[in-house]
Amino acid sequence: MNLPKPKTVNVDLYIGGLSNIQNVPNLVKLSANESALGPSPKVLEIFKSGFNLKKYPDGKSSKLKETIAKKFSINEDQILIGSGSDEIISLICQSFLNKDDEVIMSEDSFLMYRIYSQLNGAVVRFAKNENNKFSVSETLKLVTNKTKIVFIANPNNPSGTYINSDELVKLRKKLPENILLMVDDAYAEFVTENDYKSGLDIFKNSKNTVVSRTFSKIFGLANLRLGWGYGSKEIIEAANLFRPPFNISGIAEKAGCAAILDDEWIKKNVEHNEKWSKIIFEKITSKKIITNDPVANFFLLNFDNAKLNSEQAFDIFINNKILLRKMNTYGIKNSLRVTIGTDEENKTFLDILDKNF
Amino acid sequence: MNLPKPKTVNVDLYIGGLSNIQNVPNLVKLSANESALGPSPKVLEIFKSGFNLKKYPDGKSSKLKETIAKKFSINEDQILIGSGSDEIISLICQSFLNKDDEVIMSEDSFLMYRIYSQLNGAVVRFAKNENNKFSVSETLKLVTNKTKIVFIANPNNPSGTYINSDELVKLRKKLPENILLMVDDAYAEFVTENDYKSGLDIFKNSKNTVVSRTFSKIFGLANLRLGWGYGSKEIIEAANLFRPPFNISGIAEKAGCAAILDDEWIKKNVEHNEKWSKIIFEKITSKKIITNDPVANFFLLNFDNAKLNSEQAFDIFINNKILLRKMNTYGIKNSLRVTIGTDEENKTFLDILDKNF
Repeated sequence: MNLPKPKTVNVDLYIGGLSNIQNVPNLVKLSANESALGPSPKVLEIFKSGFNLKKYPDGKSSKLKETIAKKFSINEDQILIGSGSDEIISLICQSFLNKDDEVIMSEDSFLMYRIYSQLNGAVVRFAKNENNKFSVSETLKLVTNKTKIVFIANPNNPSGTYINSDELVKLRKKLPENILLMVDDAYAEFVTENDYKSGLDIFKNSKNTVVSRTFSKIFGLANLRLGWGYGSKEIIEAANLFRPPFNISGIAEKAGCAAILDDEWIKKNVEHNEKWSKIIFEKITSKKIITNDPVANFFLLNFDNAKLNSEQAFDIFINNKILLRKMNTYGIKNSLRVTIGTDEENKTFLDILDKNF
Repeated sequence: MNLPKPKTVNVDLYIGGLSNIQNVPNLVKLSANESALGPSPKVLEIFKSGFNLKKYPDGKSSKLKETIAKKFSINEDQILIGSGSDEIISLICQSFLNKDDEVIMSEDSFLMYRIYSQLNGAVVRFAKNENNKFSVSETLKLVTNKTKIVFIANPNNPSGTYINSDELVKLRKKLPENILLMVDDAYAEFVTENDYKSGLDIFKNSKNTVVSRTFSKIFGLANLRLGWGYGSKEIIEAANLFRPPFNISGIAEKAGCAAILDDEWIKKNVEHNEKWSKIIFEKITSKKIITNDPVANFFLLNFDNAKLNSEQAFDIFINNKILLRKMNTYGIKNSLRVTIGTDEENKTFLDILDKNF
């Protein structure tokens, strides 16, 4: 039988972290950088009041765009709504990349930049890090006349490091104007360092930079799939062409509006994260596990100098019902990633560290 | 400034129906073929029991695939889960279409076949209808060695007509084997005609046909964005490469499982639809409005022989707080589409017809 032939694509498959392990009930999942405290109580109130499930959502997500625009003093018509910031990345790749275009990203950044670029036929160039951080100079070395997009996550996942605002501004200035810079702000809300500015803060008025934001991290809505992007009208219009007409649920829109307005809850989440990330950092480093400074809601743990290697550590945590993220798919050796959890989850994590390292 | 240039695409924009009209509160929306009775009470029970919003959904939607596979006696690994059947269409187009490939669809079918095909660089050929129905012979006339996909919605939206199972089998047999046939079953559950079989029923074991199904119509979950596709392992694997890792919400998965298992509720919906579609059909035709036989949960109304034209009719319904779907974007002249609603909504609709035609 002569069958229909799919397109030939050369793509690294996305292999997510485990979310459950056979025969381990009640597993605590500290592997996906999800929120410790969960969504705002105001979101939960909305859930209690019910939804009209049978009707299609507003395909323009008008209320969400209005709410975001007000909150950040930005323009509604420069906002792109996505099913997670994941879809923002996908829409940008779909609208800008042609076959054999090139993109640049750091050697250990979020897998989806690579995957969506490859799905659209682009070639991915990996810039070396400097001191485990995104390097502006290494990135600039890879620019050719085929380069279309440069991706940066700041802070970066999974390394947990960030570059300061001067560096980020420098990157944009030194990149040719016709290269699109995409700044992923997924963990921006957690950062309290003085020399840090989010992509949105820096590039609100940029013509050639697009910023992505997510409701899956500090806002605790990973389950609902919601994110957004911001860029010039031209960029957002181009990406919107590829956006499915009803790409987010009506429930996600409603929850997103409530979540983004609850400043008190955001503050509470930042404080929880700041407190615990410092405590956990102290303990990790005292155990000769190498890690990043406390910046976002997770740590990348390297076990080269530690008592046990990453495989042994993973197993010990699993036996204590804590799931950490393996780093094989990122190609990062002898390492695990841990998310900051609830008070109780963090105490258990520290206790296991203490007893075994 | 030399700016980043988006890809050049030649695409018809999707222009959805209106969902609200300024200064008309409490509008009854009979314009989007949504469910009359809404979701199963079992779905509503799930909503009351709460969700873990902060955790990512299962990226494989394993429980939903297991539930669907059991219900229809099909294989889990041949199921593709999408954010609405819309995403199934998109994933099939992404995985099969290269620039300058051709696709064939009927002249008045669902807009998204055309849009996703164009977004992937394909050229769309429109087959003429016969008696307002999809025509196998007209479709076959358009086949060239560039044809990659033939789309058919059965029943078709917006014409409200269907082709019988013999015709559908004939279409597959006469199409070259290497052309992918995509059968959209969006309204299949509503059909009670004896000579009708759904795409899933006919093509369960086909190597070169893919079927799409939705939770937005009879299951009343349009708000949550959920659909699925079924095809050979090869087709589903190819499409899954392009599927985002978390393309549906965890809530949609849970609701979908409950909805698909509630046979009693499905039956109730079919009965409601059968009863009202017959009553509405009688009234429509008595008013010299031309329409399709009662098959799905909507009617396409042509006003050529009626007392008022489609614009006048639209306005009269709006003044009575009923929103119908205009057919301009489909290029169908002097016509409107109406969805079968609740008892009360249908009575209002009939009453307005009676008073004005």
